[in-house]
Amino acid sequence: MGVGYNGQRYSGWQSQLSGNTIQDHLEAALSRFATQRISTLCAGRTDAGVHGLMQVVHFDTPLHRPAASWVRGTNTFLPADIAVQWAQPVPAGFHSRGSAIARRYAYVLLQSPVRPSVDAGRVGWVFHPLDHAAMQQAAQQLLGEHDFTSFRASACQAKSPVKTLQRIAITRTPANGAGPSDGFAPCYWRFEFEANAFLHHMIRNIMGCLIAVGQGKKPPQWIGEVLAARSRNAAAPTFSPDGLYFQGPVYEPHWGLPSRTAAYDWLP
Amino acid sequence: MGVGYNGQRYSGWQSQLSGNTIQDHLEAALSRFATQRISTLCAGRTDAGVHGLMQVVHFDTPLHRPAASWVRGTNTFLPADIAVQWAQPVPAGFHSRGSAIARRYAYVLLQSPVRPSVDAGRVGWVFHPLDHAAMQQAAQQLLGEHDFTSFRASACQAKSPVKTLQRIAITRTPANGAGPSDGFAPCYWRFEFEANAFLHHMIRNIMGCLIAVGQGKKPPQWIGEVLAARSRNAAAPTFSPDGLYFQGPVYEPHWGLPSRTAAYDWLP
Repeated sequence: MGVGYNGQRYSGWQSQLSGNTIQDHLEAALSRFATQRISTLCAGRTDAGVHGLMQVVHFDTPLHRPAASWVRGTNTFLPADIAVQWAQPVPAGFHSRGSAIARRYAYVLLQSPVRPSVDAGRVGWVFHPLDHAAMQQAAQQLLGEHDFTSFRASACQAKSPVKTLQRIAITRTPANGAGPSDGFAPCYWRFEFEANAFLHHMIRNIMGCLIAVGQGKKPPQWIGEVLAARSRNAAAPTFSPDGLYFQGPVYEPHWGLPSRTAAYDWLP
Repeated sequence: MGVGYNGQRYSGWQSQLSGNTIQDHLEAALSRFATQRISTLCAGRTDAGVHGLMQVVHFDTPLHRPAASWVRGTNTFLPADIAVQWAQPVPAGFHSRGSAIARRYAYVLLQSPVRPSVDAGRVGWVFHPLDHAAMQQAAQQLLGEHDFTSFRASACQAKSPVKTLQRIAITRTPANGAGPSDGFAPCYWRFEFEANAFLHHMIRNIMGCLIAVGQGKKPPQWIGEVLAARSRNAAAPTFSPDGLYFQGPVYEPHWGLPSRTAAYDWLP
């Protein structure tokens, strides 16, 4: 199943005793539709406040129902800000996490003298203009296979801190207008990340460092020093979850699963 | 002042005893910043659930503070989903409602087999494909000066139902992808409206009719019949407020106010 969700109201993906996680709501809805307990495994757990454009889960069930029924039936029991996007049967060898060869995330950042309002909780925010070239130069140093210990949360459960970052793309979209009190023209930044896997808080820690470079607090080559230090203390503070979107896992084509995010990928 | 807000959590613009309106929160914040009671008048009241990209309010105050202080100071006391975008002094003859020569609204609609999730409350939703040409043909019949009684809520307080609709623009943006359970490719529709003024529920009632035409339930010329009937019973039901955005009033250039929506106009 592909699942979309707005993470603002939830305590992240993974099931908790509180019951207020995306997984809790999804499994409750699936179990009501199936009239039997269903447990799911996902492609990538997301933190509290992080959004999912195409989380992928798999589960075992003896029920045979049309894919469209799984979608519509489960959505009937889900809150308005979580929705199953598609469902399809998979071979027994498929595993939502284990079969994923890469994961893609996007971070959307509003650069404006005034904080977000309509988009509160949906975008990160900086009020100092960022230097595009400096951030791009900094980002290049993270590409490839590295020990990302410096960007790893202390609670991270990954077996190895060595990951391969295949892509960081930074683009800027001018916003529509500016009021007379504005010191500079507002814009949206979009940061895209693709890696074989990510450590806990890795993107939010990288974002904190890229923004420090973009604001001129640190030179671009500082990112290389942070990486080499292999120490969490070397990096900038973890940046806000508000603008972070899990765009979904990438699977080999033979599984026949959707490789793109779905309709609701409405981002600058 | 220009003000942006996400209307999802609020009971509309206008002050109520409940205290849970945008005006209530704005006036409470302004009054805290100014340390005296401030009452505001706005360019266009919005319904519960409707968003504001650039509401404009005016008020009288004996205080003299820099415009940027009014913005930052008031925002300190506002909830995260409401933010003052700009502030500037105006001549005594200015009136946020009376001086507005036009108002602009946008309606964003997701067309998808699956309901919104990440964008819940931010977009309207249809699950049947819409006919672009038919809706455009229908919309043409509403342009110009007409008695819009058929599209007016019974609670409407406007003195006259005669308004001049200057512009309806309907555009379609393909969405990024589709899952294998999808019957058709998802897309976003954007409807833009500009009139000298709008009646209560007028846009949501027009949206209901345009969608009935777009889905083939009614022919395009039916809209002309609804208009001519001058009866609320002739029109389709009021459509959801979720995708409706007040883009702001239009003023004559000599007032020197911003004429465009600000940074947070992040719409398909």
